[in-house]
Amino acid sequence: MNKVRIIGTGKYLPKRVVLSEEIEERMGIEKGWSLAKSGVAKRHFVEDETCAYMGARALEQALENANLKYEDLDAIIGASGSYDYPIPYNSCLIQRELGKIDSGTPCWDIDSTCLSFVTALDVVSYLIEAGKYNTVAIVTSEISSKSLNYKERESATLLGDGAAAVIVRKSKEDEESKIIASDMETYSKGALLTVVKGGGNFLHPNDPNSKPEDFTFHMEGREILGIAFEKLPNFFEKLFKKAGFPVKDIDLMIPHQASKVGLEMAKQYLGLSDKQFMVNIETHGNCIAASIPMALHDAIEQKRMKRGDKICLIGTAAGLSIGGLIFIY
Amino acid sequence: MNKVRIIGTGKYLPKRVVLSEEIEERMGIEKGWSLAKSGVAKRHFVEDETCAYMGARALEQALENANLKYEDLDAIIGASGSYDYPIPYNSCLIQRELGKIDSGTPCWDIDSTCLSFVTALDVVSYLIEAGKYNTVAIVTSEISSKSLNYKERESATLLGDGAAAVIVRKSKEDEESKIIASDMETYSKGALLTVVKGGGNFLHPNDPNSKPEDFTFHMEGREILGIAFEKLPNFFEKLFKKAGFPVKDIDLMIPHQASKVGLEMAKQYLGLSDKQFMVNIETHGNCIAASIPMALHDAIEQKRMKRGDKICLIGTAAGLSIGGLIFIY
Repeated sequence: MNKVRIIGTGKYLPKRVVLSEEIEERMGIEKGWSLAKSGVAKRHFVEDETCAYMGARALEQALENANLKYEDLDAIIGASGSYDYPIPYNSCLIQRELGKIDSGTPCWDIDSTCLSFVTALDVVSYLIEAGKYNTVAIVTSEISSKSLNYKERESATLLGDGAAAVIVRKSKEDEESKIIASDMETYSKGALLTVVKGGGNFLHPNDPNSKPEDFTFHMEGREILGIAFEKLPNFFEKLFKKAGFPVKDIDLMIPHQASKVGLEMAKQYLGLSDKQFMVNIETHGNCIAASIPMALHDAIEQKRMKRGDKICLIGTAAGLSIGGLIFIY
Repeated sequence: MNKVRIIGTGKYLPKRVVLSEEIEERMGIEKGWSLAKSGVAKRHFVEDETCAYMGARALEQALENANLKYEDLDAIIGASGSYDYPIPYNSCLIQRELGKIDSGTPCWDIDSTCLSFVTALDVVSYLIEAGKYNTVAIVTSEISSKSLNYKERESATLLGDGAAAVIVRKSKEDEESKIIASDMETYSKGALLTVVKGGGNFLHPNDPNSKPEDFTFHMEGREILGIAFEKLPNFFEKLFKKAGFPVKDIDLMIPHQASKVGLEMAKQYLGLSDKQFMVNIETHGNCIAASIPMALHDAIEQKRMKRGDKICLIGTAAGLSIGGLIFIY
């Protein structure tokens, strides 16, 4: 029961809005397919924005909402599945983008693809509870648009770009904010069901055998859902047993916006109402690890969650991993 | 003072040994330059090995040395600066390589480039101290050879490939093993002094403006040393103040094998003897984040450290970050 509190959030969406029609036209698929199948009417794609730029803007907003300045941060944790450069990592580039180039603020990254934010929040809560840090920014910033395969409907109509930042600090004596339960499981039988095959050492960009398509997303949605729904019942049971209350008592479930079908199956299986289940896939697409903290930001802005509420973050990630975290806001 | 204990280590070096002569010949530079300037006589380069393959072999050895089986692990933490695939992350691929594809063992990665292992050991110690995990494998597996720029002597003669795994668990009542002090600082004014510019979203592999050279390492050694030695005196002072003893009392310092000049400057500045200062750059090269845990493994195998000894891990990383950790072995 790590006593940490989310004290500010921020979000950045790229300037360019891309309607599904534009993608459908480019791909030569029927109008309305994206919304019907992927659940996405529009998403944002970067023009000149980088992961660092988007992350920095989201963090500025989070600092403002928390009424803090950069110097109040004890660490910046990058928590993304995509990146600007293979080397170095995201969070140091976010520090640089903020102009705090000689601040010394420790920066390091956590990666569990789409679950990176959830993993980071969980890990950071231990570091705060133990007194290593007091105030930490977790920044997730994702660009999927440069790696879309316009021959693959399933992913090309689904993915979007965006960033979110969440500032966490130790709860004060009279604050009830805390993490109640968290868990993660990785089943690598699904490791290559979501993959960008080329770009690393397996298939280097300079490998003469590589093709442009190798540097793009590939997803096997049906197989992912198969493993997810094989494992989720037991995962939920364990997670809510730790939390000590039934899933129906959750005030707000914020799932990774993995896919329309996945979201619908999860909501139905869990027996949750629309009010209890946060969805923004229609206007944002699946923004890799940024989906959950962006939805968290929106939920706070839209007053769909208030202090004292029981909130659950949940998702699957390339890995294939399942992760969840329940906290009192 | 997190009471954790390293109970097993493993190491994997690629089958292919590459003498400096081979690289000097390829680059058309004078024989002996690599050893004289970079400090490297030979290093290993992968043939068919992947990061996951090397990491899995190192982890198998670490499990054997710890007298454990895979099922004893509560988590696998990947801690590398390089990777097989842009998506998914390293540790799930290591689980897959071990054939434990339906085990559910949580896998996630930490990245702070060359400091990834040090950051991971520090973070994991908090998770173990708090009881989240009992036994954790940290696996670092690096391939630099596919990203060498043979027009740049400084990096092409310096870097190598290799992997190491370290298993950590909670110390028993009668064991004195523990982390005494740790710290990290990031100065992003040096963020692009060590860089692989292309391959991510800044310069995507499919970007028509990208050139093969963009997907290779670039280092500005002199500028890196400049920042490192501007910041290290104060960093060391703070770190050893936390530890509560002077640097001369350290039993073994295991530095990142960043470069010959860096190692020599550090040893001299700190006033340490050869016996107190672990160097393997001549036979391994700089293996990104794997250098420190490989040297740790070697130090244990060569009986250069024994239970109760005070050990310091220290290094700089692309970021530019400085990190250090002092523990009782």
